[in-house]
Amino acid sequence: MSKIISVNAGSSSLKFQLFEMPTEEVLTSGIIEKIGFEDAIFTIKVNGEKVKKVLPILDHTKAVALLLEALVEHKIVNSLDEITGAGHRAVHGGEIFTESVAVNDEVVEKFSSLNDLAPLHNPAGLIGYNAFKENLPNCKHVFVFDTAFHSTMPRESYMYALPRKYYDEYKVRRYGFHGTSHMYVSQRCAEVMGKDIKDTKIITCHLGNGASITAVDGGKSINTSMGFTPLAGVMMGTRCGDIDPAIVTYLMKKTGMTPDEMDNVMNKQSGMLGVSGISSDARDIEDGYMAGNDDAVLTTEMYVNRVINVVGGYYAQMGGADAIVFTGGIGENDTNIRKLVCNRLKAAFGVVIDEELNAKSRGKEVLLSKPESKVQVWLLPTNEELMIARDTYRLIEA
Amino acid sequence: MSKIISVNAGSSSLKFQLFEMPTEEVLTSGIIEKIGFEDAIFTIKVNGEKVKKVLPILDHTKAVALLLEALVEHKIVNSLDEITGAGHRAVHGGEIFTESVAVNDEVVEKFSSLNDLAPLHNPAGLIGYNAFKENLPNCKHVFVFDTAFHSTMPRESYMYALPRKYYDEYKVRRYGFHGTSHMYVSQRCAEVMGKDIKDTKIITCHLGNGASITAVDGGKSINTSMGFTPLAGVMMGTRCGDIDPAIVTYLMKKTGMTPDEMDNVMNKQSGMLGVSGISSDARDIEDGYMAGNDDAVLTTEMYVNRVINVVGGYYAQMGGADAIVFTGGIGENDTNIRKLVCNRLKAAFGVVIDEELNAKSRGKEVLLSKPESKVQVWLLPTNEELMIARDTYRLIEA
Repeated sequence: MSKIISVNAGSSSLKFQLFEMPTEEVLTSGIIEKIGFEDAIFTIKVNGEKVKKVLPILDHTKAVALLLEALVEHKIVNSLDEITGAGHRAVHGGEIFTESVAVNDEVVEKFSSLNDLAPLHNPAGLIGYNAFKENLPNCKHVFVFDTAFHSTMPRESYMYALPRKYYDEYKVRRYGFHGTSHMYVSQRCAEVMGKDIKDTKIITCHLGNGASITAVDGGKSINTSMGFTPLAGVMMGTRCGDIDPAIVTYLMKKTGMTPDEMDNVMNKQSGMLGVSGISSDARDIEDGYMAGNDDAVLTTEMYVNRVINVVGGYYAQMGGADAIVFTGGIGENDTNIRKLVCNRLKAAFGVVIDEELNAKSRGKEVLLSKPESKVQVWLLPTNEELMIARDTYRLIEA
Repeated sequence: MSKIISVNAGSSSLKFQLFEMPTEEVLTSGIIEKIGFEDAIFTIKVNGEKVKKVLPILDHTKAVALLLEALVEHKIVNSLDEITGAGHRAVHGGEIFTESVAVNDEVVEKFSSLNDLAPLHNPAGLIGYNAFKENLPNCKHVFVFDTAFHSTMPRESYMYALPRKYYDEYKVRRYGFHGTSHMYVSQRCAEVMGKDIKDTKIITCHLGNGASITAVDGGKSINTSMGFTPLAGVMMGTRCGDIDPAIVTYLMKKTGMTPDEMDNVMNKQSGMLGVSGISSDARDIEDGYMAGNDDAVLTTEMYVNRVINVVGGYYAQMGGADAIVFTGGIGENDTNIRKLVCNRLKAAFGVVIDEELNAKSRGKEVLLSKPESKVQVWLLPTNEELMIARDTYRLIEA
């Protein structure tokens, strides 16, 4: 028996979930938000109840110390030595890491060399790792990469039509992200459909603040909408997704923006926020849509347009689809987006959902499509934490 | 009766076709290539025979003078006064020009203001116009815009998920190109199918050295793969098409390229040329593919991948398709690309083509699909020249 902690560190947040392995029992979970602020928020589940504290937390190391104290204080563990492994969500593995890996100095060095491929995410993963390493020196660490599941993509999907030297010298290619989530929900989808995953074609829509869609053919990713970085694909909370690449140079010339300033525009000021001028939060956009706010309506129309175009493309590339899965914050909770997407897919692919069931389904496993639907539509909450814990347990026991 | 000349000027070339209107009889056609060189090539059809000369042609004005002399010399016209109208292919009309327009000074000024939106094409259109104006001072001129047909796109298709100010201030949006071609072949497709175009959903694939795909619903463009500029969409001879926009800034930072240098890479060194390292010419790639050259195989695989993904997306967005049309240099002649694309669309959309018929069909109107195909597949040579002549005749007679 081992206790394994699954960690997802952001630049100012840290999500965790503690598992008893191999039973996969969840012992606790929680999140520390606004790290670096006087009014940071620490939330942890104790006996099924959320315990919440607002207090100053200066950095990730302090955040982890606080979390570990809480585990002992609430008797979730008797001793911190019981935590034998920590699995860290590591976003970009480049071509170096095509599967999860036990962390050592060499891994850290290689992983750090990939920082500029995912400047929003990779450094945060390393900060999370270092914070745990400092507080739990005897624990073993594993990196689980968001890119790894997509390493099965054929070259027709991952190569860009750029001069080959940019692939050879800089490894510019499609990597894809959210791989742990796409792997989890595609495997779970085959299970709930009662099928061998080898016999399934599944389009997984991970729609959250970041969003990506994957074509999973026989359990393997064969294409995915994020690309070289997590900026590509469908529009997101603050990311523009795919645009004419000539716009990048055009706006730089027109405005005098540097490449970094342009990256900032595309990553942090675009997407739902940029179009609506209201918010990057899909819940605000949904409220605006319902109230008939035209900016929110446009944002929603564009979002649905991007999703159905990618889904249609993958339907073509796989030669059909048995199921479409919705997951992620928006996929699990935004009943309006789900309804609009599915209804737009009715004429082309015979997708028929139960609208009443859809309207009341949030955050739990539900078959949303009606029996006559030619493609099943599933709402399946993702569980990247469990996938990370499984890989961590497997690698530290090996 | 009027004689109308249809003109498509490139930076070093000028294609022309002379029509008797309104009968639409083609009186002659030809092309002047390598303008600006000592060994320019002037080709004109006389009594159905190609007459070809190699000679120095310093600029477009000289090229047009030569062409007009030839029209008289070969008695194609008795007097140059018979040419009452010249219709010029004008690539980018921005949001200013949503339909063809009779040219005056104000139009020229507005059109010139759009130069940086299509730096490869717009200035050439103006050079062609000026060359004819100098040589034929009494002729009336019309601009026919490649963007105009796409002005019916809904905002969900043409808006980018960027901060709104870039649309408001710089008119950054999807415009689409090849509109004259997409309009022609979609109208022609409805005719040959014996249907009212209002009752059709057609996906038109204009695949040439530049390439774009359009979803034509009831005769109207509702989405198209080129974007703000002709760089976007599927990969092309030397253009990369859609890539993760973060690659643009990443490569600029890594290599120190300026925006203009990066534009040059994406527009002139990418696409089939960049991937294959062999050629930007699809005929060379087809030869390489047949010979088993791996770079040519990869290039072909990627090309097919991009096309089927866009076609699938538009199939979804339109809620199905009655027909897929192939046109343009590659679409009309590359039997291998057509075969591979159609076969990849079989499982998803029930596309079944007659492979033998496809293998021998080039540059003429052919129904390539078998009767059991769920989507008709047509090879329809485009005729932008005729569309330009029709609009020119209509506007100068008005």
